[in-house]
Amino acid sequence: MTKAPAKPTRARAASGKKKTPTVSAEPTGDGRVVIEAVEPSVDRGFLATKAAEGDVVEVTADIFSDGHDKIAADILHRKVGEGEWQRAPMHFVDNDRWSGSIAADAIGAHEFTIEAWRDAFASWHAEVGKKRDAGQIIELELLEGTALLDRAIETVPESQLARLEDLRARLNGTDAEGRWGVFDSPEMREAMAVWGPRSNVSRYRQVLPLWVDRKRAVFSAWYELFPRSAANDPERHGTFDDVIARLPYVRDLGFDVLYFPPIHPIGTTNRKGRNNSLTAGENDPGSVYAIGSEHGGHDAIHPELGSFDDFKRLVAAAAEHGLEIALDFAIQCSPDHPWIKEHPEWFDWRPDGTLKFAENPPKKYEDIVNVHFYGASLPGLWYALRDVVAFWIAHGVKIFRVDNPHTKPLPFWQWLIADINAKHPDVVFLAEAFTKPKMMKRLAKVGFQQSYTYFTWRDDKAGLTEYVSELNGEMAAYYRPNFFTNTPDINPYYLQTSGRPGFIVRSTLAATLSGSWGIYNGFEICEYEPLPGREEYLDSEKYELRARDFDAPGNIRDHIAALNRARQENVALQDVRGTQFLNAWNDNVIAYFRATPDRSNAVMVIVNLDPANVQSADYEVPLWEFGLDDSGTIAVEDLLAGHASTLAGKVQNITLDPADRSVVVWRMSLPK
Amino acid sequence: MTKAPAKPTRARAASGKKKTPTVSAEPTGDGRVVIEAVEPSVDRGFLATKAAEGDVVEVTADIFSDGHDKIAADILHRKVGEGEWQRAPMHFVDNDRWSGSIAADAIGAHEFTIEAWRDAFASWHAEVGKKRDAGQIIELELLEGTALLDRAIETVPESQLARLEDLRARLNGTDAEGRWGVFDSPEMREAMAVWGPRSNVSRYRQVLPLWVDRKRAVFSAWYELFPRSAANDPERHGTFDDVIARLPYVRDLGFDVLYFPPIHPIGTTNRKGRNNSLTAGENDPGSVYAIGSEHGGHDAIHPELGSFDDFKRLVAAAAEHGLEIALDFAIQCSPDHPWIKEHPEWFDWRPDGTLKFAENPPKKYEDIVNVHFYGASLPGLWYALRDVVAFWIAHGVKIFRVDNPHTKPLPFWQWLIADINAKHPDVVFLAEAFTKPKMMKRLAKVGFQQSYTYFTWRDDKAGLTEYVSELNGEMAAYYRPNFFTNTPDINPYYLQTSGRPGFIVRSTLAATLSGSWGIYNGFEICEYEPLPGREEYLDSEKYELRARDFDAPGNIRDHIAALNRARQENVALQDVRGTQFLNAWNDNVIAYFRATPDRSNAVMVIVNLDPANVQSADYEVPLWEFGLDDSGTIAVEDLLAGHASTLAGKVQNITLDPADRSVVVWRMSLPK
Repeated sequence: MTKAPAKPTRARAASGKKKTPTVSAEPTGDGRVVIEAVEPSVDRGFLATKAAEGDVVEVTADIFSDGHDKIAADILHRKVGEGEWQRAPMHFVDNDRWSGSIAADAIGAHEFTIEAWRDAFASWHAEVGKKRDAGQIIELELLEGTALLDRAIETVPESQLARLEDLRARLNGTDAEGRWGVFDSPEMREAMAVWGPRSNVSRYRQVLPLWVDRKRAVFSAWYELFPRSAANDPERHGTFDDVIARLPYVRDLGFDVLYFPPIHPIGTTNRKGRNNSLTAGENDPGSVYAIGSEHGGHDAIHPELGSFDDFKRLVAAAAEHGLEIALDFAIQCSPDHPWIKEHPEWFDWRPDGTLKFAENPPKKYEDIVNVHFYGASLPGLWYALRDVVAFWIAHGVKIFRVDNPHTKPLPFWQWLIADINAKHPDVVFLAEAFTKPKMMKRLAKVGFQQSYTYFTWRDDKAGLTEYVSELNGEMAAYYRPNFFTNTPDINPYYLQTSGRPGFIVRSTLAATLSGSWGIYNGFEICEYEPLPGREEYLDSEKYELRARDFDAPGNIRDHIAALNRARQENVALQDVRGTQFLNAWNDNVIAYFRATPDRSNAVMVIVNLDPANVQSADYEVPLWEFGLDDSGTIAVEDLLAGHASTLAGKVQNITLDPADRSVVVWRMSLPK
Repeated sequence: MTKAPAKPTRARAASGKKKTPTVSAEPTGDGRVVIEAVEPSVDRGFLATKAAEGDVVEVTADIFSDGHDKIAADILHRKVGEGEWQRAPMHFVDNDRWSGSIAADAIGAHEFTIEAWRDAFASWHAEVGKKRDAGQIIELELLEGTALLDRAIETVPESQLARLEDLRARLNGTDAEGRWGVFDSPEMREAMAVWGPRSNVSRYRQVLPLWVDRKRAVFSAWYELFPRSAANDPERHGTFDDVIARLPYVRDLGFDVLYFPPIHPIGTTNRKGRNNSLTAGENDPGSVYAIGSEHGGHDAIHPELGSFDDFKRLVAAAAEHGLEIALDFAIQCSPDHPWIKEHPEWFDWRPDGTLKFAENPPKKYEDIVNVHFYGASLPGLWYALRDVVAFWIAHGVKIFRVDNPHTKPLPFWQWLIADINAKHPDVVFLAEAFTKPKMMKRLAKVGFQQSYTYFTWRDDKAGLTEYVSELNGEMAAYYRPNFFTNTPDINPYYLQTSGRPGFIVRSTLAATLSGSWGIYNGFEICEYEPLPGREEYLDSEKYELRARDFDAPGNIRDHIAALNRARQENVALQDVRGTQFLNAWNDNVIAYFRATPDRSNAVMVIVNLDPANVQSADYEVPLWEFGLDDSGTIAVEDLLAGHASTLAGKVQNITLDPADRSVVVWRMSLPK
């Protein structure tokens, strides 16, 4: 056997100076501990993952290295622009997967990455432990361990020095077994895990963005009404004061966001008449989406609604009722919009010098024109639109429902939302896109805090299960669904024929499957009259003033209020994540379970999707989620009807009669 | 309606100068056409996708933009360092997914990315076509189309000018319908697709690396032997000349890679004896993996094997027999390796000044010591190891089987392979890692051209199906399996008890499920004697010279030769991709189909995995792959037995008797 030189560490030091490489690429040795497949990541880590204030964000990654050395890893995270990295330890899960978590404790832009290293002491401890257990002599190994401790003592912060020196002192005057006992002690292992030598420290190549919103971005209940109908009189244009008078009604339904379609001046050129007719009657108010007249554009209020002072009073009164006002941000203009004269370069013109109207050939929309976003519009128009949003923020609005964002450039939204949120991290944008799935997703990825969904068209068990599961998968990192049951544009076929039970079904699904949900007014009185053969409302409020009897018999106001109360009182219903569908052996009956990770709050919902017939089903109670075996008993509290009971055994049967109840919403807990 | 200024284009020009933004982030407008989810990508696009020379590499991406404008996209690709991008057009598949392909026509480093844009002419054509079909007047639109053509004429290369001007001339003197006809003509649309105005051109954020190997990296048949046993006489140490004498034998089996375990001088200190015993007998040759003695190290030849001249003759003779020599690259050293004296700083030393042996506590390996790769070893050792590889390349070796790469740092392999391949893109490295899946994958991701697999332990239908499907999924972008039936270290339990039929089964699976496969000699004569209770060979050749009767009765040499012939003659078997498992209603019978995309070559394999019993199964003939209905007839040529027949109808029955045939390998084609 070859003898080593007496001081190998000196030999190392002598040759430590790197030679000139003989090829261009000198090896750096970086990346010995591999960190890959870091999640959550949006668009391969280039766009922000989203969280809500108070969330615990789980971060996972594949982390491994060559050989058998022990490794360790931290998440590094911080609020953007706020100095040093904070560290959160990761732990091994299985199959080279590691996990850790960071608390989303402040709204705004955060960032995180991962650092991993080889832990010399833990490696030494594991190896020497095996040798010692096999009865081998470990005297030399103990010297190696002592050297590791001495290295730690050299570099430890002053505050930790006594702790390590105390451990060092305990090694003196004891035999090998005694010293092993010191090295094997929890005190030593904990101290060395933090302060021991770390070699081959790897940093993940990307710093991943994380955006933290206020809670309302994921948990909100929306009520939509047209302020001009707030007088509830087709002969009198509603005002903001009329809306103020309706606030107690909306509050009593339990909603927390009150959303208005556009409130701006409406153009007269080519004004649409009732039911989207091409010619308006003398008193027809026109489409609220034909924005702009001689009274102003996107930063003006339609004169018949009231003044800015009235609007200010409305915002304040809403807040007193626990309601936040959301405005529509619809970029198109009526032909009378001031911008057309002030900024002709933002619009398209025909070869004959006329304005190019909006169209979707062969259809034409002659009451509106679209801006274009490039050429002479960039950046002037972009700033003007940003300033419109900033204007309404200055008037107390923090939530914007954005009309048809998928027909405007994605880079515009990415810039606009980042720009607004940089100053106002509490502002929330809802994307009203009903289009192909990848565009829907991309809008969320580039910044929209909330998104409309396909929920409106998912009314059977398979479709609901598949769609909600998709939303709960990788989409949950960036996509916050808002399940609207209906909108002024969408009168779903299901509701046109379902009668009252269908409204119970759809509101229950929306309110309990998604952190955010909403209704357009009239839903609560089971309004359903369609344009014949169309998925639209007859006498659409978009083109006329409407009155309704909100006390009409058969209304489901109490049911909606109960749903919103259940949502407020059960945190398991305040996010989109983690919905678990349960076995129910009837395709008309859907059952699901939602719970906090610690099961301190848990809700099971069972819905008869068939509005016309009694349906019975055997179904599985998720006893396993509470650590119970199949014969266990669970306490159940009916959140709609109020009574309490117990369920014993995993398989139960339920009968849901639309004439009586189509749904149950049960809070579950271990019996006291 | 507001009148436009007379020359809106002038107005645009005037305001085209960008204003000073009022916030820090000025919008650029970049990225209007979204390009995301680009595949193939390895490690999110940061490591190279692999292809073999002659491959057609399909590139896909999600590509979309706002609104209804038509978009188009090209793959941009080039050999690294060779100038301009080449373009390959992409086409729309569905759901915003686009696809295109690039030909891997030269070995070495390539790169690709994607460019996408809004196609103004195609958008105009689609919109105006709808208007015209709806009977609308399109005079103004035709002026707009003419303007697009004029813009193209302004920018088109000289070579294309006549083509566009001819189209422009055809617009003169004809009515609207006539001009529409010109615009709608294939000549116009093809010309404008290439030379028409492209707006909002987006480039994918990454340039993705693509490494192209020679074909042998994915399609190879390996035969492993110990040169020192080539005399086939346990009393006489084999020589390279003995190996030369065996070349016709290996050639006749149809292999194309002849792989040797280490051929370097073997240490004497702590030399292992037969069956891995701790003390060697006087004449025991030692483990070939205890590399290094007073005769030299990794760049020397064990003296008893012959000289460098002999080795040179062997390499040349092998080539004449269609065989390429593969060497083992095993980094550990015997205690007698010259490096220990020359470079003590590359090794670990104990506190008492002794050398630290290799160990996996509590096991010790006292005939070998490991180098370490960091500290004073970086970069000296790295260069030295690189130079070892370069040394053998200079001696005619282009394939290296790397021993236990997962116990050496990944950054070392990444650097070494890149460094060697930069000068020698035809050099292939096979990773002999049997470890956890993510490390296996990572070694391939950082550069290994071929990898050992879990095939050896996948001997039931479910395990084979799942594993081969995994290899054919996203792993196929970087992981080239080499299905070894056995190795000097692995004598699979299945083969220990299966008798001859098991060797037929395993060789057939290996040869037809993977582009590369291999056997360790003795397999062809159904050698199976284990160390009792272990998955290892009795009297392992790693520690002694061995003789065998390669003509022993029951040998499967003809079967192996037929398998290798079938592989050579059927391109469907020359890669790992696209294996389709077929329904066969018996868990002991596995059936699969492999074919070229155009089905010009197609092979079906059916294997009775049970070596002890006759098994029958109904199975599905993949008639649908040939466009046939379930009653169709397909021609079948038996590639092992040689006869031809037809199969009529989708469901067939087969009986496979291990005493007669355990497997069928059928070439399928449409009947003439």
